Amino acid sequence: MKKWMSAAALLLPLGAASTALANEGMWQPHQLPALANELKALGLELDADSMTDLTAFPMNAVINFGGCTASFVSPKGLLVTNHHCGYGAIQYHSTAENNILETGFLAKTPAEEKAPVPGYKIWITESISPVTDQVVGAVDPALTGAAYAEAIEQRTKALVAECEAEPNTRCDVYNFHHGAQYFLIKELEIKDVRLSYTPALSVGKYGGDIDNWMWPRHTGDFAFFRAYVGPDGKPAEYSEDNVPYTPKRFLKVSAAGLSDGDFVMVAGYPGRTNRYRTAEEVQTYFETVYPQAKVLREELIDLIKASSEPGSDARIKYEGTLAGLANYAKNYQSMIEGYAKTGMLAAKQTDQDALVAWIQGKGDRAAKYGDVLAQLDGLVAEQWAHAERDLILGYLRYNQMTTVAQRLYRLAKEKQKPDLERESGYQERDWDGFKAGLERMDRRFDATVDKAMLHHLLMRYAALPASEREPSLDRLFGLSGQVDGAKLMTKLDSMYATTELGDVATRLAWMEKGPEAFEQSADPFIRFAVAHYDTAMAKEKKDKELEGRLLKVRPDYMAAIIAFNQSQGRPVYADANSSLRLTFGTVGGYSPQDGLVATPFTTLEGLAMKATDQVPFDAPAKQLELIAKGQYGEFGDEAVGSVPVNFLSNLDTTGGNSGSPTLNGRAELVGLLFDGVYESITGDWAFNPELNRSIHVDSRYMLWVMKYLDGADNLLDEMEIVD
Amino acid sequence: MKKWMSAAALLLPLGAASTALANEGMWQPHQLPALANELKALGLELDADSMTDLTAFPMNAVINFGGCTASFVSPKGLLVTNHHCGYGAIQYHSTAENNILETGFLAKTPAEEKAPVPGYKIWITESISPVTDQVVGAVDPALTGAAYAEAIEQRTKALVAECEAEPNTRCDVYNFHHGAQYFLIKELEIKDVRLSYTPALSVGKYGGDIDNWMWPRHTGDFAFFRAYVGPDGKPAEYSEDNVPYTPKRFLKVSAAGLSDGDFVMVAGYPGRTNRYRTAEEVQTYFETVYPQAKVLREELIDLIKASSEPGSDARIKYEGTLAGLANYAKNYQSMIEGYAKTGMLAAKQTDQDALVAWIQGKGDRAAKYGDVLAQLDGLVAEQWAHAERDLILGYLRYNQMTTVAQRLYRLAKEKQKPDLERESGYQERDWDGFKAGLERMDRRFDATVDKAMLHHLLMRYAALPASEREPSLDRLFGLSGQVDGAKLMTKLDSMYATTELGDVATRLAWMEKGPEAFEQSADPFIRFAVAHYDTAMAKEKKDKELEGRLLKVRPDYMAAIIAFNQSQGRPVYADANSSLRLTFGTVGGYSPQDGLVATPFTTLEGLAMKATDQVPFDAPAKQLELIAKGQYGEFGDEAVGSVPVNFLSNLDTTGGNSGSPTLNGRAELVGLLFDGVYESITGDWAFNPELNRSIHVDSRYMLWVMKYLDGADNLLDEMEIVD
Repeated sequence: MKKWMSAAALLLPLGAASTALANEGMWQPHQLPALANELKALGLELDADSMTDLTAFPMNAVINFGGCTASFVSPKGLLVTNHHCGYGAIQYHSTAENNILETGFLAKTPAEEKAPVPGYKIWITESISPVTDQVVGAVDPALTGAAYAEAIEQRTKALVAECEAEPNTRCDVYNFHHGAQYFLIKELEIKDVRLSYTPALSVGKYGGDIDNWMWPRHTGDFAFFRAYVGPDGKPAEYSEDNVPYTPKRFLKVSAAGLSDGDFVMVAGYPGRTNRYRTAEEVQTYFETVYPQAKVLREELIDLIKASSEPGSDARIKYEGTLAGLANYAKNYQSMIEGYAKTGMLAAKQTDQDALVAWIQGKGDRAAKYGDVLAQLDGLVAEQWAHAERDLILGYLRYNQMTTVAQRLYRLAKEKQKPDLERESGYQERDWDGFKAGLERMDRRFDATVDKAMLHHLLMRYAALPASEREPSLDRLFGLSGQVDGAKLMTKLDSMYATTELGDVATRLAWMEKGPEAFEQSADPFIRFAVAHYDTAMAKEKKDKELEGRLLKVRPDYMAAIIAFNQSQGRPVYADANSSLRLTFGTVGGYSPQDGLVATPFTTLEGLAMKATDQVPFDAPAKQLELIAKGQYGEFGDEAVGSVPVNFLSNLDTTGGNSGSPTLNGRAELVGLLFDGVYESITGDWAFNPELNRSIHVDSRYMLWVMKYLDGADNLLDEMEIVD
Repeated sequence: MKKWMSAAALLLPLGAASTALANEGMWQPHQLPALANELKALGLELDADSMTDLTAFPMNAVINFGGCTASFVSPKGLLVTNHHCGYGAIQYHSTAENNILETGFLAKTPAEEKAPVPGYKIWITESISPVTDQVVGAVDPALTGAAYAEAIEQRTKALVAECEAEPNTRCDVYNFHHGAQYFLIKELEIKDVRLSYTPALSVGKYGGDIDNWMWPRHTGDFAFFRAYVGPDGKPAEYSEDNVPYTPKRFLKVSAAGLSDGDFVMVAGYPGRTNRYRTAEEVQTYFETVYPQAKVLREELIDLIKASSEPGSDARIKYEGTLAGLANYAKNYQSMIEGYAKTGMLAAKQTDQDALVAWIQGKGDRAAKYGDVLAQLDGLVAEQWAHAERDLILGYLRYNQMTTVAQRLYRLAKEKQKPDLERESGYQERDWDGFKAGLERMDRRFDATVDKAMLHHLLMRYAALPASEREPSLDRLFGLSGQVDGAKLMTKLDSMYATTELGDVATRLAWMEKGPEAFEQSADPFIRFAVAHYDTAMAKEKKDKELEGRLLKVRPDYMAAIIAFNQSQGRPVYADANSSLRLTFGTVGGYSPQDGLVATPFTTLEGLAMKATDQVPFDAPAKQLELIAKGQYGEFGDEAVGSVPVNFLSNLDTTGGNSGSPTLNGRAELVGLLFDGVYESITGDWAFNPELNRSIHVDSRYMLWVMKYLDGADNLLDEMEIVD
């Protein structure tokens, strides 16, 4: 038998084959100096040290866009993010009569910009300070379970309160390495953010859910907003007197773009990864949690579609919900497929076995870490003992009536405590957001759809065996014995017909009331919230107990992993936790499967080839004409032979990175991160250098659309565009 | 505006960019000397002249496998073709108890080989002689319409009869360039062809209908048969005394295989192309015929599936029919998509405009060809005036009861004429095949399925407007007014309950009876055939009239096209017509769409990555073990890094080429042609060098499966395997 390189070795990332630094890693800014030499070799032209200064270029231009990332691209507070990150705001401003989601929107002057959506804010990270000693170090180590979790929470709340004494500041204590380290992150909060420009849906969401997570891709996934502050330059609530914010730093936008193999980096707010889970957790998620959650999402999608006509007001209200449900239904499907195909569990088991062997090696390791894995797996088993029930009841969050009633009653109860002792989400600092949520609900709520979802989830719950049932729920909705769907619907009909929570003024009024008012209310959903309260609190208490126990065990497990990696000379980055991170790599394609290679750039011509007259491939006629004429303007690329539309890189990104500025070695904006390829979805659990690829909008396509398709010259003029 | 190469230019065939000869063209052997220099430059090592000798190497080893192609690969009459070409025979030998279609089959000795399927024959082309003068030249030029068509038919029948006076010979006059040229093709007919070896369905049809027409591909689409002759070496009917046939020539099989860019050629029997149709014909086919036919096929597929349980005897009987229906449903879908995407109609119109401009140029061209296009388009419009009705009634051929009854009665009627005047298909030379068809029907027929199809097609027909109806059909099945589906089914129930045509002896007995017996029969399907006879004959007469008119006009149109091409120095090959052709090109990938490149080889590891435990990706466990062990044996390829499974070339092939030997420059067998990629399906109408790619089984994969998976050492030993 001859010996050759295995076929898998051929799947090496095309652009990265010659680079020294593994592109895996979502690094905290303070880690960069340690990586400086490697980053320089990879193509970083800036001084790595300078990137640790959050008040300087380029980091100060990177914005936390609430679940997404954005960046300043002009001295007048203009910021760019993904179309899908601005989707909710664009949808908020759309009506059946003036559907700017569909047509696109351009404010030719600041005066035409769309007033902010209630509660939409942005945040600029100003400092990140290590506070592990002030959190863990200040808690009695003898505490366990819920008491320990609550003590940690008290400490973080105290630090947050102290920090937020400074006006217009949002502070949070972030847990890194699952409780091993804590950092206090201080952000400047800007409250007046207006929509400046969005391309049409047929550009910004071209390819829609069909192309979502897919390559080849041709999506113009960008939208522009503008940050406003008071006349004094300080953050302020929306007012006509407000003026555009002058950011400390903004990014130049590159019209020169990138080539295959070029260095790129992304700065942003990746949400969550699970790179340090145990094999048992991996198995539980991929064999139980994701398959069940996928089914629930698909059921809810079908239900929403069945209970709202396409194009109706009701459907428009649920477009965002549908997009979110579909996005993760596809994500979970890919997780399940990838898990089966890539041998992820076996690989994780191998890594874990190596860790265990190392622990059982020399020194005091066995004493320190010997039983940590068994302890952790025991807690994980406890956590998922009622997986199906917990998932079904978890998806009840999509039902707005039960959710809003429970949140309002909870607020009334929490208000009885001193602010620092209130549950997170119900403190004074949260009230503005709470109120905005109550206001926004009108734009996202339809009673028929909401009722259909509640009915479906309750019927799913009612089919569970007796051991999985919650008596208060069964009693409240009459779910004992053989449940009659029609009878349940009659009950819900009556509840929805009677409740007044559909009215925004009523909802807002409840924010001000005390628990007694709730307890005396005849509103059926308020009554549900009151009656179910003790059960919900008991569940929360149980969860907190588990959380506290995990908060003791996971840091030990992480300490073992970190020590093991350090013993091998491998730097360790923390799992994503929505805090500011950087990832470095190169432009390049990959082989999604045997016999196929994905090349790193797509073109205008490829966009036109996909076009049909049907959503989501209904490219605007004018765009197709420009392409047919080959009108690339100054944005064409000789090697690509066209205007590059989207491109691939081997950067390590995940949800939350959406909208992140993609930067070249000089930190010029060369694109926007907006997605990962299908094969990289499992990357949240295990980064695979052969298959993990991020998808970016090319800055040249963005500029081309702005200039030739949408005539956004006013914005182009205020941006600094470089070659 | 800067100027660059267009993005389309980047899609150049990867392997062929530097070759001189366009790979388009299905050449007749006698045309090769004119291409000799170009073929040598491309990589042909044999003398092109030698390939015109059909009795010599390599052409004599190429076999007409009845709608497919095969080739001799041993001195003992062993021949190889595609699994999907042998599918019918393999299915014929499969039962629910011993399902060799599923398990595969290997005769360890010739005695174990499976007896021939009735009517299965193979043919070896012995000579191809130009006979245009004896056909067209011998017909009175004043004849028109049906009279002309019949006169041409009489001439070809006379030539065939004369040629077939020699025993064991099949002769046919083939029409080239749509009636401009005729060739008499003489073939040696071998009647005893036995199944020697087939891999399991999960190898031979790996990927099934999902992967059909697709790349990447991992199909082991091969099967082996053996030709037998009488003890005197002459073709003979099946007998235990028969001995393996000794072919004049056979092909060596390469274990060395090919690399990207290597020369390849395919010799085979491509069925039909439409490269010289008018723009109006293109539009009719792509906008009317294919869309309607696709729907009918999908309806029949659903119907067969709904009326036969998976795994049941009934379903097994219809697997071949289902495969055929699905194959072309997908083909038509691709046609429709390709038509919309590639601007085929516009390109055809441009070519046609150039032809028209040339005709209107100097000399006597306008006089010779001036009105030929208008005449042709007039006839085409007439031909498709009742497209939907004709398609629905055309698909009635899938209903076996009406078809067999009509064919039997027709035979009785034709027998009253002298043999040479009988309609083709009913002459004495056709009777053996006719009888075999009647016998085979038992293996392909289930009354419930057959009835469901008849009911469906009649209901479809009954929904047509009055202008499209045939009174005799309406009367016979009671289809006037508002048709009641249940009532029609009751009628069909009674017909199927009463008929005796389901019995093979009864069917065979009818072959011997005269028309009077039919006319007095009470069998409901015989009664249908008799009552519908005049209508069917009138339709046939009308079709023949049109055929005669087309036979006068198309040759003139082709003469104009040939003269136009010759004026540009372009050689002209004829549309495929199931006669022996050769096509030349290179191994190479392509870009199926912007942002993706198909690479030319797939691997064992890619096969394993596709594997699930579900049909059609249920690769045998033993195969997956061999792959996991990396047991490539002597068949691995260093550049590919594995055993190559399938590969791509830019050869110009179509249906009928299936099973064709793929040959290197020395005419060693390096693979078997078995499919084209999805984007090349429209190639039957317009060859696109950027997108037309053929898919081949790599000889190394075939040998690997034979040696390591199926232990077919007895066959490997008799083959001449070369490095």
